[in-house]
Amino acid sequence: MTTSSSITDHRAASSVGIVEPQALHFADALTLQSGATITDYTLMVETYGTLNADKSNAVLICHALNASHHVAGVYADQPKNVGWWDNMIGPGKPVDTNRFFVIGINNLGSCFGSTGPMHSNPSTGKPYGADFPVVTVEDWVKAQALVADRLGIQQFAAVMGGSLGGMQALAWSMLFPDRLRHCVVIASTSKLSAQNIAFNDVARQAILTDPDFHGGDFYAHGVVPRRGLRVARMIGHITYLSNDDMAEKFGRDLKSGEYQFGFGVDFEIESYLRYQGDKFSDYFDANTYLLITKALDYFDPARQFGGDLSKALAGTKAKFLLASFTTDWRFSPQCSRDIVQALVSNQSTVSYAEIDAPHGHDAFLLDDARYLNLVAAYFNNIAQELS
Amino acid sequence: MTTSSSITDHRAASSVGIVEPQALHFADALTLQSGATITDYTLMVETYGTLNADKSNAVLICHALNASHHVAGVYADQPKNVGWWDNMIGPGKPVDTNRFFVIGINNLGSCFGSTGPMHSNPSTGKPYGADFPVVTVEDWVKAQALVADRLGIQQFAAVMGGSLGGMQALAWSMLFPDRLRHCVVIASTSKLSAQNIAFNDVARQAILTDPDFHGGDFYAHGVVPRRGLRVARMIGHITYLSNDDMAEKFGRDLKSGEYQFGFGVDFEIESYLRYQGDKFSDYFDANTYLLITKALDYFDPARQFGGDLSKALAGTKAKFLLASFTTDWRFSPQCSRDIVQALVSNQSTVSYAEIDAPHGHDAFLLDDARYLNLVAAYFNNIAQELS
Repeated sequence: MTTSSSITDHRAASSVGIVEPQALHFADALTLQSGATITDYTLMVETYGTLNADKSNAVLICHALNASHHVAGVYADQPKNVGWWDNMIGPGKPVDTNRFFVIGINNLGSCFGSTGPMHSNPSTGKPYGADFPVVTVEDWVKAQALVADRLGIQQFAAVMGGSLGGMQALAWSMLFPDRLRHCVVIASTSKLSAQNIAFNDVARQAILTDPDFHGGDFYAHGVVPRRGLRVARMIGHITYLSNDDMAEKFGRDLKSGEYQFGFGVDFEIESYLRYQGDKFSDYFDANTYLLITKALDYFDPARQFGGDLSKALAGTKAKFLLASFTTDWRFSPQCSRDIVQALVSNQSTVSYAEIDAPHGHDAFLLDDARYLNLVAAYFNNIAQELS
Repeated sequence: MTTSSSITDHRAASSVGIVEPQALHFADALTLQSGATITDYTLMVETYGTLNADKSNAVLICHALNASHHVAGVYADQPKNVGWWDNMIGPGKPVDTNRFFVIGINNLGSCFGSTGPMHSNPSTGKPYGADFPVVTVEDWVKAQALVADRLGIQQFAAVMGGSLGGMQALAWSMLFPDRLRHCVVIASTSKLSAQNIAFNDVARQAILTDPDFHGGDFYAHGVVPRRGLRVARMIGHITYLSNDDMAEKFGRDLKSGEYQFGFGVDFEIESYLRYQGDKFSDYFDANTYLLITKALDYFDPARQFGGDLSKALAGTKAKFLLASFTTDWRFSPQCSRDIVQALVSNQSTVSYAEIDAPHGHDAFLLDDARYLNLVAAYFNNIAQELS
């Protein structure tokens, strides 16, 4: 009963503490879905916990648009830089690093240390810029598998992700059915809707048409397409929050109590979004934003099966946990239900929870007791399989 | 029975045909809600049908964001420039110009001939640009009342509008309760939500940060902030369509059958939105876009009554027709229900229809038989009152 009490007793949970990223270099060329090749590349990796003797307790965490390999803990010199899923991963946390060896990998093309558009293109000696090849969810998963090889992990106890990370977990189950026992897919979808693609394309157009983008070669000009990134992030942010949550948090609250009759800040929501946009444009790479939104748009494993997701998932061997959030209008519960339905029709083992949470798509990153307890219970069962 | 058959027999309906706008000049200064003053101004007006002897059959049509006084018919030299509500207004149409004298007015600050930011500021001799004062829905309604005075119309049979036009109709009922007998409010709201404001602000930021905006003085530079306008329109357009409608019309259809692995057009939805954005940036004024979105954001008649919409509507004397569309997520049915509830609590006379239509917010402009028949039946009743 100690175990099950740890699920709800968060007093027992703590942070993984100080962590250190490692850069893994891969010298062999990687051929991408587009047909393009990356001749050699580096992937940033963090690990937490200890790999057990039979290497059966590894959990891969896949990241979403603006996250990275820094999943949990802090850096010694950056005590405020907390991993993006620190509430989920750590000693005594739902993915308990006392039991699991957890791995975070920064995807190819991202801007947190792994090889991306800001790095030198070996064939020109200049930054890739817009020449960095378009990467897909499947490309990332293949690169992640090479990391697993390097770490000596033949099979993951689980591959897990939320949103775009959930797509990667799903792709793992199809591309490497023997290399994971559990697939945990949160607030995700098997394909973007026309509306999802539309939002992504507006964001891309904002970046592509920013004069400081310089066709992707802004590094050489010593500028950053901040205006485009800012608008892109503001658009994205609207889709991460629920209408109700925005109404609750901001409503029509005015920054200074009165209408200003100008184009500065009137409403608190304006102030919040502009701040989010500004902050994002300080650290995120514009080419990476383009690449990652394209990976989102392209993900559609059913496509090569005439749109039949059951067929796409027919070869999977993992057990699945899916979770969605009622107020998520970016990837609505229906998107998860479609995946569950396809898995059920294949007689796969699948657990599904639809969590009544007010926070929209962002809920997958937040502290909701029912959600965290669900994941904790699921990983507790996985841990039982280990012993 | 001739009358009621005309409601459904659209074979009997025709266009108002060739119409001609008139420019009405107002020499007296207009003081705006902000405290600013417009010293003199012109409003573009179109009328259809004939004002009856006792001037009791006038209907005012209020326009939304990118529309104008050109509500019905065509211009002699522009046979393809059909009025934006031509399916609603004309001989034998729901608002039947054989019975009603219908007026369209281009609002102050717009870009279709009425005085706006591109016109000369009498105090500087240069275009107003960003110095054009912020105008509100209430300011527009006051200017429309001056047009009614000029035309000798003391009381409208009805004031009608959709979306932002519906806000003007609603404002008429509060500001001039004795000057309209019916108030027709379609796909509208009594106030924007935080999410609505957020979308407007992202659109504004795209325009304000376009280097070609030049602080609103782009006229002097011989350029147009096309990039910003384009992104603004793309964002707006996403909110006008329903998720389902977009899925139905575009889905994940590819422009050329295969992924292009680049940042050009892959999906049909991208092609459509970029086309809409380009077209819009060809004709719409950037300062007008800023002004009109601000008017949307500021509209909140309950604000001065502590948020109590019933109190705001307590002095109204009109009878009301409200209609909303089930898939409208910009101004959802709940927004209309809130207005209906406030009117009912005041014991006002109100009819309300929630129309199950797939086309989202744009449905108010489209041919839906139930919707057009509803409006036809309502205006048929108004016509009965005339005779």
